[in-house]
Amino acid sequence: MKFKRTERIGAIVKILSDNPNKIFTLSYFTNQFNAAKSTISEDLIVVKNVFEKLQLGKVITISGAAGGVKYIPKTSKAENEEFLMDLCEKIGDKSRILSGGFLYLIDLIYDPTIAAKIGKIFASNIDYIDADYVVTMETKGIPMALMTAKAMNLPLVIIRKDIKVSEGPTLSMTYVNGNNSKVESMSLPRKAIKPNSKVILIDDFMRGGGTIKGMVDLMNEFGAQVIGTGVFISTIEPQEKMVKDYISLIELDVNGESVKVEPNLKTFKDEYQNEEVQGECQIDDIIEDILEEEE
Amino acid sequence: MKFKRTERIGAIVKILSDNPNKIFTLSYFTNQFNAAKSTISEDLIVVKNVFEKLQLGKVITISGAAGGVKYIPKTSKAENEEFLMDLCEKIGDKSRILSGGFLYLIDLIYDPTIAAKIGKIFASNIDYIDADYVVTMETKGIPMALMTAKAMNLPLVIIRKDIKVSEGPTLSMTYVNGNNSKVESMSLPRKAIKPNSKVILIDDFMRGGGTIKGMVDLMNEFGAQVIGTGVFISTIEPQEKMVKDYISLIELDVNGESVKVEPNLKTFKDEYQNEEVQGECQIDDIIEDILEEEE
Repeated sequence: MKFKRTERIGAIVKILSDNPNKIFTLSYFTNQFNAAKSTISEDLIVVKNVFEKLQLGKVITISGAAGGVKYIPKTSKAENEEFLMDLCEKIGDKSRILSGGFLYLIDLIYDPTIAAKIGKIFASNIDYIDADYVVTMETKGIPMALMTAKAMNLPLVIIRKDIKVSEGPTLSMTYVNGNNSKVESMSLPRKAIKPNSKVILIDDFMRGGGTIKGMVDLMNEFGAQVIGTGVFISTIEPQEKMVKDYISLIELDVNGESVKVEPNLKTFKDEYQNEEVQGECQIDDIIEDILEEEE
Repeated sequence: MKFKRTERIGAIVKILSDNPNKIFTLSYFTNQFNAAKSTISEDLIVVKNVFEKLQLGKVITISGAAGGVKYIPKTSKAENEEFLMDLCEKIGDKSRILSGGFLYLIDLIYDPTIAAKIGKIFASNIDYIDADYVVTMETKGIPMALMTAKAMNLPLVIIRKDIKVSEGPTLSMTYVNGNNSKVESMSLPRKAIKPNSKVILIDDFMRGGGTIKGMVDLMNEFGAQVIGTGVFISTIEPQEKMVKDYISLIELDVNGESVKVEPNLKTFKDEYQNEEVQGECQIDDIIEDILEEEE
C-alpha cells in the first residue's frame, strides 16, 4: 500500500503519540509505509514541528545502534496552570466536604481524561530517565499512577493493603496511617520489583506523609531506591511532612466549612525546560547519523 | 500562528487520538489553526483516510447543532488475534503457576501498554453507545477498566471491598466469592452512580462468575442496568457461570502443572463491523451539512 505524505505524517503522529517514550527505528516506518528513508526523515521533521508548535511534547532522535525516534510527553506551565485552576474550582465546591473533613473526589480522580492529564504533568515534572517502575498504593491513586506509567513508558506496581497469598511469596510490613494514626499494613509480591531498581512513587493524597514514608521503607526492603515522588494533593497542615523530596500538584487547606485549594505552582518546571536529555539531541542535527548507521 | 497542511493534519490526528469518542466541532479546529472551514474539511478527509488505511479506528462526523468530528477506537480481528496470541504465550509460561492453581499475572495486567490495548479491544467489542459508566471492582481490574473507560470516553467507577466511610454515605452488600466460596463485601458511595444509569462491567478474571453477579446485584441496588460485561480471562471450568451475557478475551484451563490458555476468538466482531452508528455517517457524505449549519 502506498501512502501520501499527509497520510504518512498523520500515521506517524498517531503511532508516536500512542506510545510515549518508546523508540521506533527509521526502518520501522520505512517498512510500515513502503517509503525511502530520506522520505521518512523529512516526514519526521514535520512531525517534530507539529509537536513543538502546539506544545504537545517533544519528538527526539536517539543515535547509535539502538537509535530511532521517540515522543516525550511534555506539558507547558501555562497549560498546567489552566488545567489545575479549573480542577481546583471543582474540588473547592462546598458540596464535596464530607463529615470528618474528608473531600469527595473520586469522580474527578477516576476520570480517565483527568487521570491522563495528571499523568502527563507528573511525567513533565519528575525526572524519570533512570527509573525502572512507577509504584503506587491501592486504591485511589491507581488511575493517575497508571497514566503516569503510560506517559513514562514504565511498568506499574501496585502495593496492596491486605496480604494477597494468591500472588506468591509476598513481603509485608506495617506503617502508621497519618489520617487516623492507625497501624496498617502494606504488601507486595517478591517478584514485583527486581533488586537494585529505581522507582517513582505516585499517590493521590498526602497529609503527614506516613503512607509515602511507608512506601519508601517498603522499597528499601526490596533493595530499590526512590528517585522521585509525586502526589496529586498535599495538605498545608501539618507543615512538617514525614518525607522531604516530593512534588505536589495541588495544595489543600480544609478548616471546618472552608476549603482552600490552589495549584502548587512552584512545582512546575519552566515551559519545555529540561528537554536536552543526555545522549539525545534534535532530529535536525542527527537524522543523517541514523541514515548512515543504518545503511 | 499559521500551519501548513501537513502540520494541521498531524495536529488533528494527535487531538482526536488523545480524546477518543469526544466530539470536536469544525470551529474548534478553524480557531486552533486559523484556517477556513473548507480547508479543515479537506484535512479531515485525509485524517479519516489515515485511520482507515492503517486500521487505527474510525473518524466519523455527527450532524446537527451539537455536531462535529469524533474518533472511535477500533481494533481489527487480526490485530486482536496477534496481540492475544502473544499474551497467551506469556501467560502460559509454567513459571507463572503459583501454589493453589493461581497464576502470577500482575506484571502483565498492570502494564500500561497491555492495559491500553485491552481497553481498546473491549471498546471494539462491547456496545457502549448508551452507557453512562464503566464499573470495576478493586484492585487488579482497575488498569484495564480505566483504559476501557478512556477508549469509551466514560467515567470510571471503582467498587471497594471494604467499607470506606471517608467517601460519604455508602451502599454495601455481600456476595459469594467463587475462588474460595467465602462471603465477602463490596461497597460504593451513593453519589457514585446516578439512578437509571446504564453501565459496562469490566473485570480481570472470572471463574464461577460470583463477583460479576455481585456487581450486577449492586448495580440493581443503585437502580442501574448492566448493558455489557467484559472479562479479560475466564476459566473453562466451571462451564456453568453465574452470569450469561459477557465477553471474555482469553480462556484458561489450569490443571495441576498444565496451563492451557487461548484467545477466545469467538468473542471478536468481524473487522471494522458495527461502524454505522445511528445518527452518524461518513465525513464525505455530510461534511457539507456541517458547513451549512455552522454558517
